[in-house]
Amino acid sequence: MDLVVVGSVAYDSLETPSGKRDRILGGSASYFSIASSFFTRLGLVAVIGEDFDEQYIRLLEKFSIDLGGLEKKPGKTFHWKGKYEDLNQAITLQTDLNVFESFKPNLPEKYRKAKTLFLANIDPELQMDVVKQVENPRFVACDTMNFWINVKRDELIRTLKNVDLLFINDAEASQLSNIQNIFTAGKWILENGPKAVVIKRGEYGSLIMQGKKIFIFPAFPLEEVVDPTGAGDSFAGGFIGYLHATEDYSFENMKTALAMGTVMASFTVQDFSVGRLAALSYAEVENQYNKLMDYTELKRIDLGALKSRNGKL
Amino acid sequence: MDLVVVGSVAYDSLETPSGKRDRILGGSASYFSIASSFFTRLGLVAVIGEDFDEQYIRLLEKFSIDLGGLEKKPGKTFHWKGKYEDLNQAITLQTDLNVFESFKPNLPEKYRKAKTLFLANIDPELQMDVVKQVENPRFVACDTMNFWINVKRDELIRTLKNVDLLFINDAEASQLSNIQNIFTAGKWILENGPKAVVIKRGEYGSLIMQGKKIFIFPAFPLEEVVDPTGAGDSFAGGFIGYLHATEDYSFENMKTALAMGTVMASFTVQDFSVGRLAALSYAEVENQYNKLMDYTELKRIDLGALKSRNGKL
Repeated sequence: MDLVVVGSVAYDSLETPSGKRDRILGGSASYFSIASSFFTRLGLVAVIGEDFDEQYIRLLEKFSIDLGGLEKKPGKTFHWKGKYEDLNQAITLQTDLNVFESFKPNLPEKYRKAKTLFLANIDPELQMDVVKQVENPRFVACDTMNFWINVKRDELIRTLKNVDLLFINDAEASQLSNIQNIFTAGKWILENGPKAVVIKRGEYGSLIMQGKKIFIFPAFPLEEVVDPTGAGDSFAGGFIGYLHATEDYSFENMKTALAMGTVMASFTVQDFSVGRLAALSYAEVENQYNKLMDYTELKRIDLGALKSRNGKL
Repeated sequence: MDLVVVGSVAYDSLETPSGKRDRILGGSASYFSIASSFFTRLGLVAVIGEDFDEQYIRLLEKFSIDLGGLEKKPGKTFHWKGKYEDLNQAITLQTDLNVFESFKPNLPEKYRKAKTLFLANIDPELQMDVVKQVENPRFVACDTMNFWINVKRDELIRTLKNVDLLFINDAEASQLSNIQNIFTAGKWILENGPKAVVIKRGEYGSLIMQGKKIFIFPAFPLEEVVDPTGAGDSFAGGFIGYLHATEDYSFENMKTALAMGTVMASFTVQDFSVGRLAALSYAEVENQYNKLMDYTELKRIDLGALKSRNGKL
């Protein structure tokens, strides 16, 4: 399996301004893998409990996701309960780790030759352990969250030194670096770990930094967001899925990958759970990408020529 | 005079995290005219008091700004005192309107044939009165603020029906439309007034909407902001100055104008008052524009071709 994701497959119970849902499919690896499956085949490493609904297994299989690394264990599936009062901030009401509490990812033999590896938001020590299980990965990316920055900062920084790309949101980037300005925070992150960093800014878009290079990109314009859960994981899924599929890990190609992440996240937030992704066609992805380019593309002009024409400037 | 701006020329006393300044040059028309003077000649309509410093007159003249519409009146110059605790929100400590209180713009004869008109943030009734004074303008743009939306909403909407373009920030767009979502708010504004609207989102950039067209653009990445005062007026100055200089008021050209506004605002915030603008060369403007394009430009790819290559998708 060329692309492998390690993360959570979970039940979410949540309330947003658009409605309320109980025990729907959630988890970072679920969103990531469905989003990236539009670009590539991949293998999923996660743990579920005995209560996990078979229909969700069939859904993941429908997207040709290899489930050789999805372990079923005695007990209940990870369950997150939360709500959104405004759509920018999830409020956690209850976290039942259940079988996820003792999750120790053990990669199936065929995953150990993975070329591209995505470490979704799990304990940074487990992330490091997974990196070691892959023989010679070409590209390793990871996600994290405020909880790990608080509780396992040193372990997280150790993991970051072993990854090519970190996905992080603006608040977390400031928290990790203790720097308010997002570009200065990004620089700090690059000096302390990954080769590149993607900083997500919610409805305002995202940016990527590598060395002295910066690329800034808007979010897809949406008039309604039904449920923001999974937007970040779908973003990473679109990004990494595209990057892996094109076998080009250059900064130039990561810019297009950022657009693919933006596209996939724009679908995810239009419905609860993976509802919108599950109903999606590749033609719709293509169409959304072209719309996004229409909304953001700008032809470069020659300002020197304007000066010559106006003479007096 | 082909391009005319009507607004304020003022003294600002302010404090930002970078320092404190007393009675420095401020006012919407000052920032607008210096920023737009990099692209075109223009005339300025405003009022100053007897205490206005001659060195600032000479500064405006240095930028070839026509001051035929700058009236000196008995009394003191408009004085604004404020501070920024965080850089996104100005806190007004004191407003001395002084001679600005009875400001009734009366355009000099030579300004009445203006092709492009910019109505900076003044009473919407005065804005409407100025529009009537110009014989046959090709393009009228205006700015406004939360105060006028609160106090003269009906008059403002009447003015908006007579302008081609409104500059407004995201909070004001929501306030004016009573709609939280920025794209829905933009639609509402287009239905109730101007032919096009630019919505400014501070450090996150800006967007422009006209009919069903949307263009979204990031801000220039800056690691430090010294003083955000005048950023919006410099943005409008770069935008309108460029638009006027190129004599092309199409949506396509407004997209590039948005980049020019972004460039000029990025300079303004790097120093107090018009300090950075006053020291600026056209070559620096050109260089900043090219950097901004480097930070934001993305080549469109053919997603259909990727699918064919990957076969299985």
